[in-house]
Amino acid sequence: MDETLDLGFARVDIGRQSRQGLPEIVYGPGKQDAEITAIVTALIARNSGPILVTRVEATTAAAVRAAIPGGHYNAPARLLTWRKIGDIGHHIAVVTAGTSDGPVAAEASAVATALGMRVTEIRDVGVAGIHRLLAETDRLRDADTVIVIAGMEGALASVVGGLVEVPVIAVPTSVGYGAALEGVTALLAMLTSCAAGLTVVNIDSGFGAALAAYRLTRVSS
Amino acid sequence: MDETLDLGFARVDIGRQSRQGLPEIVYGPGKQDAEITAIVTALIARNSGPILVTRVEATTAAAVRAAIPGGHYNAPARLLTWRKIGDIGHHIAVVTAGTSDGPVAAEASAVATALGMRVTEIRDVGVAGIHRLLAETDRLRDADTVIVIAGMEGALASVVGGLVEVPVIAVPTSVGYGAALEGVTALLAMLTSCAAGLTVVNIDSGFGAALAAYRLTRVSS
Amino acid sequence: MDETLDLGFARVDIGRQSRQGLPEIVYGPGKQDAEITAIVTALIARNSGPILVTRVEATTAAAVRAAIPGGHYNAPARLLTWRKIGDIGHHIAVVTAGTSDGPVAAEASAVATALGMRVTEIRDVGVAGIHRLLAETDRLRDADTVIVIAGMEGALASVVGGLVEVPVIAVPTSVGYGAALEGVTALLAMLTSCAAGLTVVNIDSGFGAALAAYRLTRVSS
Amino acid sequence: MDETLDLGFARVDIGRQSRQGLPEIVYGPGKQDAEITAIVTALIARNSGPILVTRVEATTAAAVRAAIPGGHYNAPARLLTWRKIGDIGHHIAVVTAGTSDGPVAAEASAVATALGMRVTEIRDVGVAGIHRLLAETDRLRDADTVIVIAGMEGALASVVGGLVEVPVIAVPTSVGYGAALEGVTALLAMLTSCAAGLTVVNIDSGFGAALAAYRLTRVSS
Amino acid sequence: MDETLDLGFARVDIGRQSRQGLPEIVYGPGKQDAEITAIVTALIARNSGPILVTRVEATTAAAVRAAIPGGHYNAPARLLTWRKIGDIGHHIAVVTAGTSDGPVAAEASAVATALGMRVTEIRDVGVAGIHRLLAETDRLRDADTVIVIAGMEGALASVVGGLVEVPVIAVPTSVGYGAALEGVTALLAMLTSCAAGLTVVNIDSGFGAALAAYRLTRVSS
Amino acid sequence: MDETLDLGFARVDIGRQSRQGLPEIVYGPGKQDAEITAIVTALIARNSGPILVTRVEATTAAAVRAAIPGGHYNAPARLLTWRKIGDIGHHIAVVTAGTSDGPVAAEASAVATALGMRVTEIRDVGVAGIHRLLAETDRLRDADTVIVIAGMEGALASVVGGLVEVPVIAVPTSVGYGAALEGVTALLAMLTSCAAGLTVVNIDSGFGAALAAYRLTRVSS
Amino acid sequence: MDETLDLGFARVDIGRQSRQGLPEIVYGPGKQDAEITAIVTALIARNSGPILVTRVEATTAAAVRAAIPGGHYNAPARLLTWRKIGDIGHHIAVVTAGTSDGPVAAEASAVATALGMRVTEIRDVGVAGIHRLLAETDRLRDADTVIVIAGMEGALASVVGGLVEVPVIAVPTSVGYGAALEGVTALLAMLTSCAAGLTVVNIDSGFGAALAAYRLTRVSS
Amino acid sequence: MDETLDLGFARVDIGRQSRQGLPEIVYGPGKQDAEITAIVTALIARNSGPILVTRVEATTAAAVRAAIPGGHYNAPARLLTWRKIGDIGHHIAVVTAGTSDGPVAAEASAVATALGMRVTEIRDVGVAGIHRLLAETDRLRDADTVIVIAGMEGALASVVGGLVEVPVIAVPTSVGYGAALEGVTALLAMLTSCAAGLTVVNIDSGFGAALAAYRLTRVSS
Repeated sequence: MDETLDLGFARVDIGRQSRQGLPEIVYGPGKQDAEITAIVTALIARNSGPILVTRVEATTAAAVRAAIPGGHYNAPARLLTWRKIGDIGHHIAVVTAGTSDGPVAAEASAVATALGMRVTEIRDVGVAGIHRLLAETDRLRDADTVIVIAGMEGALASVVGGLVEVPVIAVPTSVGYGAALEGVTALLAMLTSCAAGLTVVNIDSGFGAALAAYRLTRVSS
Repeated sequence: MDETLDLGFARVDIGRQSRQGLPEIVYGPGKQDAEITAIVTALIARNSGPILVTRVEATTAAAVRAAIPGGHYNAPARLLTWRKIGDIGHHIAVVTAGTSDGPVAAEASAVATALGMRVTEIRDVGVAGIHRLLAETDRLRDADTVIVIAGMEGALASVVGGLVEVPVIAVPTSVGYGAALEGVTALLAMLTSCAAGLTVVNIDSGFGAALAAYRLTRVSS
Repeated sequence: MDETLDLGFARVDIGRQSRQGLPEIVYGPGKQDAEITAIVTALIARNSGPILVTRVEATTAAAVRAAIPGGHYNAPARLLTWRKIGDIGHHIAVVTAGTSDGPVAAEASAVATALGMRVTEIRDVGVAGIHRLLAETDRLRDADTVIVIAGMEGALASVVGGLVEVPVIAVPTSVGYGAALEGVTALLAMLTSCAAGLTVVNIDSGFGAALAAYRLTRVSS
Repeated sequence: MDETLDLGFARVDIGRQSRQGLPEIVYGPGKQDAEITAIVTALIARNSGPILVTRVEATTAAAVRAAIPGGHYNAPARLLTWRKIGDIGHHIAVVTAGTSDGPVAAEASAVATALGMRVTEIRDVGVAGIHRLLAETDRLRDADTVIVIAGMEGALASVVGGLVEVPVIAVPTSVGYGAALEGVTALLAMLTSCAAGLTVVNIDSGFGAALAAYRLTRVSS
Repeated sequence: MDETLDLGFARVDIGRQSRQGLPEIVYGPGKQDAEITAIVTALIARNSGPILVTRVEATTAAAVRAAIPGGHYNAPARLLTWRKIGDIGHHIAVVTAGTSDGPVAAEASAVATALGMRVTEIRDVGVAGIHRLLAETDRLRDADTVIVIAGMEGALASVVGGLVEVPVIAVPTSVGYGAALEGVTALLAMLTSCAAGLTVVNIDSGFGAALAAYRLTRVSS
Repeated sequence: MDETLDLGFARVDIGRQSRQGLPEIVYGPGKQDAEITAIVTALIARNSGPILVTRVEATTAAAVRAAIPGGHYNAPARLLTWRKIGDIGHHIAVVTAGTSDGPVAAEASAVATALGMRVTEIRDVGVAGIHRLLAETDRLRDADTVIVIAGMEGALASVVGGLVEVPVIAVPTSVGYGAALEGVTALLAMLTSCAAGLTVVNIDSGFGAALAAYRLTRVSS
Repeated sequence: MDETLDLGFARVDIGRQSRQGLPEIVYGPGKQDAEITAIVTALIARNSGPILVTRVEATTAAAVRAAIPGGHYNAPARLLTWRKIGDIGHHIAVVTAGTSDGPVAAEASAVATALGMRVTEIRDVGVAGIHRLLAETDRLRDADTVIVIAGMEGALASVVGGLVEVPVIAVPTSVGYGAALEGVTALLAMLTSCAAGLTVVNIDSGFGAALAAYRLTRVSS
Repeated sequence: MDETLDLGFARVDIGRQSRQGLPEIVYGPGKQDAEITAIVTALIARNSGPILVTRVEATTAAAVRAAIPGGHYNAPARLLTWRKIGDIGHHIAVVTAGTSDGPVAAEASAVATALGMRVTEIRDVGVAGIHRLLAETDRLRDADTVIVIAGMEGALASVVGGLVEVPVIAVPTSVGYGAALEGVTALLAMLTSCAAGLTVVNIDSGFGAALAAYRLTRVSS
């Protein structure tokens, strides 16, 4: 099957963009600089879509960008990109409960932006000061999709889920200590939310939430 | 706030349809026949949207329908409805891994149908016989949204996630025994899927998946 | 030590009221009708405080009340009492997220009432419809202590904790299914609340919350 | 809403003191020195209450104090404060099971002191030598509130709960190894205490216990 | 090896008494009346030690005793015995925290008695009323071994462990609800006790504790 | 028993090869260079089979090889070997879901090769791009045994289990984050696979899978 | 794809036998009598291999056998079969730790027998009386494959794994109470066995072990 | 109470030896060199029993010994002692499954020796090579008490429990990876052992096992 390029250490899915309509996204951790360089080179040569490498540290990013021109590195998001998609007319709100959720939000925003979505960030609106969130209701309701990012008890997702009618994608984070259990508590809480129709992605997966939002834009209806 | 009607035993959100665009859906368990009857009566009188009562046993359904004409009861789905929404032009596929996942699929399908979505059911295509699923690829790709329902190891969600570009909402079920841990294994597996951009709802929540699909249809773009 | 009366099957702490200032409260489950009757008889005879027996089914309550006059039975709360305390001038709000949390709220309210506290119940104000809770802000702020009772993700505790300055005692309930894990999720969520200074009691322990509130009234300052 | 000051990286709740009666307390971890400095500067300028920054390492404390005069740093408690509250006439006992629980006790004591409470520390009275605790019974009974701090099996909370009638706030600590499960065992044990009316806060949260005690002092009755 | 008698459905260790010095004890659950009868018959015929069948319901006990004369049934302990051992000069105290721990204590006491130990029962001395336990200190110190039986937080084991110098065998029970986790909390708590040198057996295993005590008596020194 | 050589710090089973037909394999971690050297020296002197030392870091490997000639070190597999077995005519496929599973696959392949098996590696065929796996169906069906190595949700094992009729040994890996729970999710998922007759070994145990495959070759039939 | 027969309620894989070499095995629970009858009828008509329906209760078995002649029902194994395979020359030992593991062993033996394997059962050889197991060493070593079935701590698998060189498939059972955690303890213990090269199947899955053994016989070498 | 010496940072129980018959043992971690020095100085001055400080690193040991003459440091056991007890005529066997369990065994042996017990070490007799253990049966049966130390699946405890009649104290260790869960698997397995009358202490607690053995020697009978 010629959609796959076998580099020996990895099988690059160069046909995903045309076959599935989703970009092939490279997970950075555990790959050496040269391996990332080879994969990105192959993707640039053989398909025409955007290229994203996630969770890349700054030194690796520098090495890969030195080898392949045209790349962009977003340090807070640890995201390396080539060939960003232009505006696809979908607007998402990325909402966080606290400042410690920032890196996950950065990843979600950067991936979404690279895939052509417009992003509004609404940070630090945890429910212990509910007026902070309510003051942002209009901006929340402007979005086509809302990504809610929260650690500790993750209650923000439930409140936001009751304020908007569009899809709400909840991202639990590993923020917190003790009974927060490295994000498991927020994960479980979001899955049992009293707000109907929320969906949840893995702990700290800003990337997963952005991809889920991108899938929404592929609906033909 | 006049959007809430206080019945003493419950606070009915009669304004949700107009305020949030989502119907008020009544969770049946733990409510007596007379309570469900009173809530439905209030909703019929005071708003104009669809009314759904979930997880209702047959005897309760009969009692409530005797008191309030016009209701429809879907026994496999345990769903009681009044004022179904007409076709809203969104097509979902409800895919199950095995026959034991049937009741959860029935709930998802019935709720989706009541909310105006068109449903294609693709049952019993677990990945141990991958040809069964691949034979359905075209029908899967026809859908605007895919709901994947699976217990045990929940692997079906990952394979489907790689076949379609539209939103995939995964529902883990409590099917299985031993290490299946009442659905927790499938839940965790779906959350760590190697397919990017899947989202997950609570164990056995066919209802939650259907609502999440409905939220997709509320995106203005 | 003559503060303890040994009945053979139980050691009744007849001196707790005078020694510790807290009433001796009998946990009903696992005790036979005759045993409860003997314990209550001993307490009535040997101290002067209120007597409470918790989690008593109706048939047991009837049997014990037939043997010992003057008892009161609160069926929803499953509480049997003698010698209720008069008004001690402490006002608590008992707030629930959903109608299914009702039995736990009933226990909290009945125990609090029997111990001389005034109770305001605010039911069915889960955060998915945050306006329902906000509409009750004034009543919440009137209370000396707020008991928040919620299952599923337990988010109500965090929001209430940000609205009032007085003690908030959170009671997780076993309401919910799947990832709710029989109340463990709500318990963990309440313990990691982003609202500062909440405290938490055991799952479904309306009794424990009421006793914690009663301890507040014993502060001399 | 002018109670919130948006610093870009954080939303400072400058109105909490007047609105809720509780001070805005800054959680230090994950914030850069300059961010803490900016938040504290804003709080000093715009409200009049006490300012606390928790879990601050010594180097950060030095940097922030160099930028903002008048601050006090308590190293064992890792607490940074400005504008301590004067004596509010509430006396708490902070009781620990072992010397390893010291840092959590230091945080509880320092926060309580900064909020105007008088603190008596009773250290190293674990129940394996019950005479050590009983010898302190009078001092325990002098307190308006007792904070019990214990790791391992956390049994101290149950014994103290049976000795005093005032509120007992239990803080599980991550002291111990193996089956102590990083504090989870003490947490679960305290929640299932046989002493009625105890309440529990998160693992290692000396801060949470002190805030809970402060809430007690806001009761008007 | 002629120490084992193969009955087809079971392999009876008729040589354990002579080989290991411990009696062969039959675990009743899952065995039919006829199977228990056959096993006991074989043991009576082929060795000379005591015979114990644990966790036997009354109807089974009656059936087996009808078939094999000389048996004794202890209903609260659900224990069926033949050929009790005479007094071996070892005295154990069986201490319980609450009345609900009674059935586990009954099993421990009955097994110990059948094996020739003298038993003192000290019931209902949970640590929330520590004076109840302290009043029994002399009786505790009279024992050669102390078995402590407690559910909920299991704190009694730690306090007793600090009062006596002889072996303390802790038995967690499944008494409690919510965070008691069916006895797991008491189990973990007892394993992390701050009292040195306690040992622990399985949840609800009064039998296991009695056997452990019996092993103590086999020490030749 | 002269099959065991007591080195003081370890008991070397020099008779395993002749007694059980399986080689004695030394687990490297926690052993000092001199200890490994002594054990290998003893094995070389006293039996004639292959010698494997697993999970050995490069510096230790160099030290031991300097002392004992003839050793081979496979760095990616962290395996040190002497006296490799010649081809025993058994062919295994080692299949991985992603590039991060590489080290576990390297261990499985190296151990299998040292024991005389022929290995085909099929890497990076995770199920999110199912065509990658299906393209390898013929190579999979050529194998006598298939070892499937996957982290995250571990779904690859189920799909492979449905494609081949020979033994499938699943190895969960600790690849993934959040809900992957350090490999526990993949482990549970593989144990509840919908494909019948899979077997599972411990997390990250490439070694265990290779040994299980070797046991297959010892079947006489 | 004509290998699948769509019965509406199920997709029968009539081609598995010819395609994969493994029989299609029907999981009984959750299927109605008429559904099982229809599936079996289809399999009998359209392929030629053995037909097994697992975990079938006696009344269902009677109903299906009344409709389809030639079926055999093994009650202890709850297995219903048609067209048993003749002897394929593979001999397995099914070894159990205790009598309570009997039903799982019955399932393993019955499935293995139906698939043409010869079975030797070695029951009740738990390691607390290790001489019972050692006395059976010769019979163990006669087998081509050993299935070890044990609950509680599952130690039998480790000892057997050290006695034989052929494949050992471990089946944890849910036998035991308290810390046995419904079979999870035995499962974890078997996965971390100190005996190299064991493999493990799901809790109580006698069926899974037998299928794994059958896969061994499909190896061409 | 003059049995306690309050050093400010710690409450030293100088009366434990005379009151309870057990030595006061100091847990080293978390204490500074000066603190340990002060505590040991106080104990030397005010009572006459043995003094043990556990889990002390070499540099701390050197510092404390420099300040207080007469101390002995056992490096593998990380134990610091003064005034060792002479032979009390009790003989224990310390048995380990593998070489990695060595440090825990060293602690058990050193503590036991310091308390006057005679110790026989039987190392590296894990059950995968059962002949190694059986060859030591006589030495096992010579002991008054057996301490069994094992990680991974902990099966050694069950086999030893079936070989001797005297007390068996099982110590699970954190040796192993993956499903070993840092010692939790061995802990659970030992608690559900099929061998009757075993008792268990905390993970890696060689100290706890030695103390439990010492308690045995305090039995007067």
